[in-house]
Amino acid sequence: MPQLSTKGLKMPASPIRKLVPYAEAAKKRGIKVIHLNIGQPDIKTPKIALDAVRNIDMEVLEYSRTEGSDAYREKLAAYYSKHNIHVSANDIIVTTGGSEALSFTMGTILDEGDEIIIPEPFYANYNGFATANGVSVVPIVSSIESNFSLPPISEFEKCIGPKTKAILICNPGNPTGYLYNHDEIKQLVALVKKHDLFLVADEVYREFAYDNKKHHSILSENGIEANAIVIDSVSKRYSMCGARIGCIVTKNKDVIQTAMKFAQARLSPPTLAQIASEAALETPQKYFDDVIKEYVSRRNVLVEELEKIEGVKIARPSGAFYCVAELPIKDSDDFAQWLLEHFAIENETVMVAPAGGFYATPGIGTNQIRIAYVLEKKQLIKAVHILKEGLHQYLKK
Amino acid sequence: MPQLSTKGLKMPASPIRKLVPYAEAAKKRGIKVIHLNIGQPDIKTPKIALDAVRNIDMEVLEYSRTEGSDAYREKLAAYYSKHNIHVSANDIIVTTGGSEALSFTMGTILDEGDEIIIPEPFYANYNGFATANGVSVVPIVSSIESNFSLPPISEFEKCIGPKTKAILICNPGNPTGYLYNHDEIKQLVALVKKHDLFLVADEVYREFAYDNKKHHSILSENGIEANAIVIDSVSKRYSMCGARIGCIVTKNKDVIQTAMKFAQARLSPPTLAQIASEAALETPQKYFDDVIKEYVSRRNVLVEELEKIEGVKIARPSGAFYCVAELPIKDSDDFAQWLLEHFAIENETVMVAPAGGFYATPGIGTNQIRIAYVLEKKQLIKAVHILKEGLHQYLKK
Repeated sequence: MPQLSTKGLKMPASPIRKLVPYAEAAKKRGIKVIHLNIGQPDIKTPKIALDAVRNIDMEVLEYSRTEGSDAYREKLAAYYSKHNIHVSANDIIVTTGGSEALSFTMGTILDEGDEIIIPEPFYANYNGFATANGVSVVPIVSSIESNFSLPPISEFEKCIGPKTKAILICNPGNPTGYLYNHDEIKQLVALVKKHDLFLVADEVYREFAYDNKKHHSILSENGIEANAIVIDSVSKRYSMCGARIGCIVTKNKDVIQTAMKFAQARLSPPTLAQIASEAALETPQKYFDDVIKEYVSRRNVLVEELEKIEGVKIARPSGAFYCVAELPIKDSDDFAQWLLEHFAIENETVMVAPAGGFYATPGIGTNQIRIAYVLEKKQLIKAVHILKEGLHQYLKK
Repeated sequence: MPQLSTKGLKMPASPIRKLVPYAEAAKKRGIKVIHLNIGQPDIKTPKIALDAVRNIDMEVLEYSRTEGSDAYREKLAAYYSKHNIHVSANDIIVTTGGSEALSFTMGTILDEGDEIIIPEPFYANYNGFATANGVSVVPIVSSIESNFSLPPISEFEKCIGPKTKAILICNPGNPTGYLYNHDEIKQLVALVKKHDLFLVADEVYREFAYDNKKHHSILSENGIEANAIVIDSVSKRYSMCGARIGCIVTKNKDVIQTAMKFAQARLSPPTLAQIASEAALETPQKYFDDVIKEYVSRRNVLVEELEKIEGVKIARPSGAFYCVAELPIKDSDDFAQWLLEHFAIENETVMVAPAGGFYATPGIGTNQIRIAYVLEKKQLIKAVHILKEGLHQYLKK
């Protein structure tokens, strides 16, 4: 049999994926599994976006432009300008999800063997895109004690070497829910300018900033036009993960020109989803106000309930819809599997994401889990109750 | 300014892309440009596919499964079985276009520095996916004299070395329109078995086989379950290029498992387009009968008109909707640009794809062009007339 690539064999499996068979087995035994593990919001997609697709007037479903339709990119530029990000349509390449924006960005700025620094815990698929590009992730651990705030710049300095080409942050963070403050962003900006690195910011949760805190985009800073690349997506903003529409935003024309060559090879982003995404930009502010109110109240309930559990430490999230909790256990992979295999209350159990997969440093975070609060409050309260009782019983084993 | 990747700088630009500014300038001068250069069919998308999207009943546009929805993959398996390709839903990964299927396949089977053999001329974006994966394309020239039939197996044998991991064919071919016969497929099968290579077949034009010739899929052959990987797409089959839905089909479970890790990193293929693609599978046979009748009659007209031009040699296509013609010129890049810049009849000119970009060997095919016959006959006849008069005047320069 012909050999697979070494790269392919190295590709990391999703940290949640290995639990899926256990969840499926539980369902087959008649157990209802409450999913705290996935970032698929239950929030409704704006009707205006779905209606745009329902009302399509076309006879041929044609390719769009490689960089995305002009109309969509122009409206996107107007959207950004409302968020104090002053870019034009030509600074934007529409991609198939934030995922493709990350792939193209890595291909554009990193060669095989190059290094990208990422504060951990981080979105696990960054590992996948790095492996696919032959790139090494250099993690810098952030601490649950400080809610996963930016590690000291001195830690970054220690890691910067001749192969370092970029720093990647997720703001607000998945899985941390941490929202970087303006000072932290300014520190990063100074750092990348000093060392002539790219600063890539995954800002797909931009709107999800709570407690009257403001989101600070790296593109709102002066003087890093050449360094700053923003990754964006409609998935979470409009609860339309299945659209698969994202974008790269940068004022660096060379980055745009090179990323366009990767984009040309795949012809165009999906046309129908672009129609929905363009319409979604007309979503009234009230939609976001309601959604954010809902997430804040879910976050509050979740934090309150988790804090009642003895031995549990949590990082209070100020953004996105994730929360990392540290449990008084050794191995959250084992615990998550055990919940699915051996525990239920009134035929219901919970599925959590073990946090080990969000760290690149082996052995760190193995007592942590990520909870996505994409369920309504009653369900969340019930889920935390099951988690609490499960933990209690697991510790008695 | 931070440095871009060497890989990014090496990424090939689309061979047509450099003509785009000249086409745009012509349009600004009031010249109508007839596009013979693109593979965007004018054929209507089956109404059943667009209606499925118009009638969506959903409140949240969710991720689909990473491998594509079960319903779609099961119906796809049934579709393949009608084409003498016996696979199950588990042998299929739905991708974002044939493009992503090619990317995932290359990542799965090829490491940086590995070689993939491709008969040339070939679909230019194979170069892009190869460069993005750090893979070397080893071309084997096929000849316009034989309509671009399979080069002798001895030529392949000469190129196979320790770094060779795969052979890639496009059947029927873009840009050649050549449909491999059963004997050619059997020769390739024997070759990859002998040398333990992967055989990747891009079969996106499967339905477009003319003159009562049959399409022979590599997956219909016995004994190469471990070697054969088919790349497929709905783009051309249902004239829905903008859907961006393709798939990988293989009986090799290790390939599926590894390709799935690349797929997991990007979460899922587009949901709306999958709904359209699933519905498209219900397209009645009459649609294809009519489409093929239309393409055959366009092909006949195109070939007839081109043959009238002195000094023009053509490869008669038996499939797809492309035709490569050799012109009595030295540099088809220059000619194509000249047509846009300096020639028009009654304010109309044509845009053709210079064929040099479809060859990996430098200097070959530079007197050839690719014509996509995706226009109705009247337009085609007019376009060939403009081409003929243009050529006449160009040669007098």
